[in-house]
Amino acid sequence: MLDAIAGIGRDGRTGGYRRFAWSDADMALREWFAGEAASRGMDVVEDGNGNQLAWWGHGSDAVLIGSHLDSVPDGGAFDGPLGVVSSFAAIDRLRAQGASPARPVVVGNFADEEGARFGIACAGSQLAAGRLSADRALAQTDLDGRTMAEVMVARGRDPRTVGPAGWLADIGTFVELHVEQGRSLVHSGDAVGVATAIWPHGRWRLDFCGEANHAGATLMSDRRDPMLAYAATALAARDVAVEAAARATFGRLSVDPGGTNAIASRVTAWLDARATDEDQLTTLVDRIASVAREAADSDGVTVEVAAESVSTAVEFDVPLRNRLAAVLDAPLLPTAAGHDAGVLSALVPTAMLFVRNPTGVSHSPHEWAEDADCDAGVDALVTVLRELA
Amino acid sequence: MLDAIAGIGRDGRTGGYRRFAWSDADMALREWFAGEAASRGMDVVEDGNGNQLAWWGHGSDAVLIGSHLDSVPDGGAFDGPLGVVSSFAAIDRLRAQGASPARPVVVGNFADEEGARFGIACAGSQLAAGRLSADRALAQTDLDGRTMAEVMVARGRDPRTVGPAGWLADIGTFVELHVEQGRSLVHSGDAVGVATAIWPHGRWRLDFCGEANHAGATLMSDRRDPMLAYAATALAARDVAVEAAARATFGRLSVDPGGTNAIASRVTAWLDARATDEDQLTTLVDRIASVAREAADSDGVTVEVAAESVSTAVEFDVPLRNRLAAVLDAPLLPTAAGHDAGVLSALVPTAMLFVRNPTGVSHSPHEWAEDADCDAGVDALVTVLRELA
Repeated sequence: MLDAIAGIGRDGRTGGYRRFAWSDADMALREWFAGEAASRGMDVVEDGNGNQLAWWGHGSDAVLIGSHLDSVPDGGAFDGPLGVVSSFAAIDRLRAQGASPARPVVVGNFADEEGARFGIACAGSQLAAGRLSADRALAQTDLDGRTMAEVMVARGRDPRTVGPAGWLADIGTFVELHVEQGRSLVHSGDAVGVATAIWPHGRWRLDFCGEANHAGATLMSDRRDPMLAYAATALAARDVAVEAAARATFGRLSVDPGGTNAIASRVTAWLDARATDEDQLTTLVDRIASVAREAADSDGVTVEVAAESVSTAVEFDVPLRNRLAAVLDAPLLPTAAGHDAGVLSALVPTAMLFVRNPTGVSHSPHEWAEDADCDAGVDALVTVLRELA
Repeated sequence: MLDAIAGIGRDGRTGGYRRFAWSDADMALREWFAGEAASRGMDVVEDGNGNQLAWWGHGSDAVLIGSHLDSVPDGGAFDGPLGVVSSFAAIDRLRAQGASPARPVVVGNFADEEGARFGIACAGSQLAAGRLSADRALAQTDLDGRTMAEVMVARGRDPRTVGPAGWLADIGTFVELHVEQGRSLVHSGDAVGVATAIWPHGRWRLDFCGEANHAGATLMSDRRDPMLAYAATALAARDVAVEAAARATFGRLSVDPGGTNAIASRVTAWLDARATDEDQLTTLVDRIASVAREAADSDGVTVEVAAESVSTAVEFDVPLRNRLAAVLDAPLLPTAAGHDAGVLSALVPTAMLFVRNPTGVSHSPHEWAEDADCDAGVDALVTVLRELA
């Protein structure tokens, strides 16, 4: 099944995927999802937020499995899609074994998990769970200045239906399978692991504003160059994160006016920060913001720091995670990455399974999982469904 | 006349100009130039490189005045256009005074002086002077991946005519008037000055390559993040330039893949560097490149440094500049900014006049010249034409 979608949204130059919410690639993946469900006789419901749910059976107390199909820019083939295809494969195996679950089994494809287009991660699950306001989401703009509302209308969706989703009331448990983003399973020698928790994490926007001027004619001492305060902040962020055993990353920048021979008037930088608990995260971001302000002051530029999205720590349901670790004989491990499972865990007992990633790399074309480990992941889902459904 | 073109290529949000070579704004400015020339009975010739020349009189040993009409991103209203409109205004005053020059007077609008679209500054004058190969220029691409050749064809130009221009043989002297990019004339208390020299300067492209990965799940110690080596280089460039009394600027950056939650795989940064002489410039760039390599090595990333364009030092014609300084009673001053006058000075005796800029700012909407100083600039051109033509 991964082969069937391998060509969708793939950049021939980088080998990475660009499957942004409501893009042509995303629409093609939605059609593929609907086709896979239909070929298995499963009814597909799309909620007002674009989340797709394929139902095997009907009723309440359903077991939801699945993940997402969108990607970061130049993402890999596994982050998201592995959970979706493993879910369909697990259903195939259960059926081949003649199983007939007592509860409905639902495969989900959550919309806009990566937030690569509109800047809000897990937008689809957050909207469904009522954790993100429809007004705020619909007003977010992409790089072309189009709002989420405009983009949804262009795809034939009705923005008035965006918001809390009724189907959640029928879900009894959610188990998301995902490729590991790190090498813990490589070190422990296991193909599959069970998540304990998600670190709190968030995105902050830092706007450094100075004065555009001629790169040749302006004395170094006459400059108010925001690039330098940004550079000092980026280096300090690394040092602070290393010291705190946390994570801080600047991977996205916008420089105005962006001419080779013009000093920048503005540098906007997005900080991704994560730490083991919320106090540590606050301290981390405060320290980085404080370096940014000092550097800005000393260069005669200004800086504004604004939180764009902050996710609190998630502790997955303890009885559920222990039960799954026991039946799967799998190790428990935490993750610093956000997931739809983290969002839904506030509403329903939720667990996550990780599949070993030999490179440890993710959000990159180098992310990987061996066929045998993918197969073990499907088997784990089968075991989980036999246990829970 | 500046008012007449004030709306062309202006960004309503920043108040700056985006008049890139062969853009709609540039085409409108070309039409405006042709109209101004026609209304004065001047014949306009456009050479194969897009340089426009409006002739008052015919023959050889002509006096060329003028400048350029294109801009950097979010540039100001004066850099370029002031020289062109002052040239037409000077002709109007000469004619009002009943003057009839013995030599032809030519107003020039040089194509793509800023190099904002295709990355090569003074492309039009360099091509006309045979200092830039047509093949290299035509193969340059803009941000949309379109080559200069494609763009010229789309504007009805024939790329086969790009190259050394015959009209240069008929030019005896070139005098370019330009807004000052700095505050030397503010300090000396003069409305107009005469240039002595242009510092050697150039653009270098630094490609820092690392490994894209998940911004949350990747340990700080497992990263190969090219953003950090870039940041260290940007800070070092300032320190090295301050120490050498030179200039070094990073005002343009490209970050791949550019996702908030992905460590960058590549950061491409353009360095603009200038120094008083060529040895100093070489030393400056070598020191910055050396910091870049050390930072890259220590972070497990690579860096490649490539010169995109390097302009040697220009010493303007000494008898001419002294003669103009004497008749204008104007001070002599150097500049660190490149100009078409610097290019043509290799082929014909060339001088530059600077008009006082109270802010000292250029390549920004804040660049400025008072009406009285603009008027003094026109008078200076009138005096120069009476002296030379």
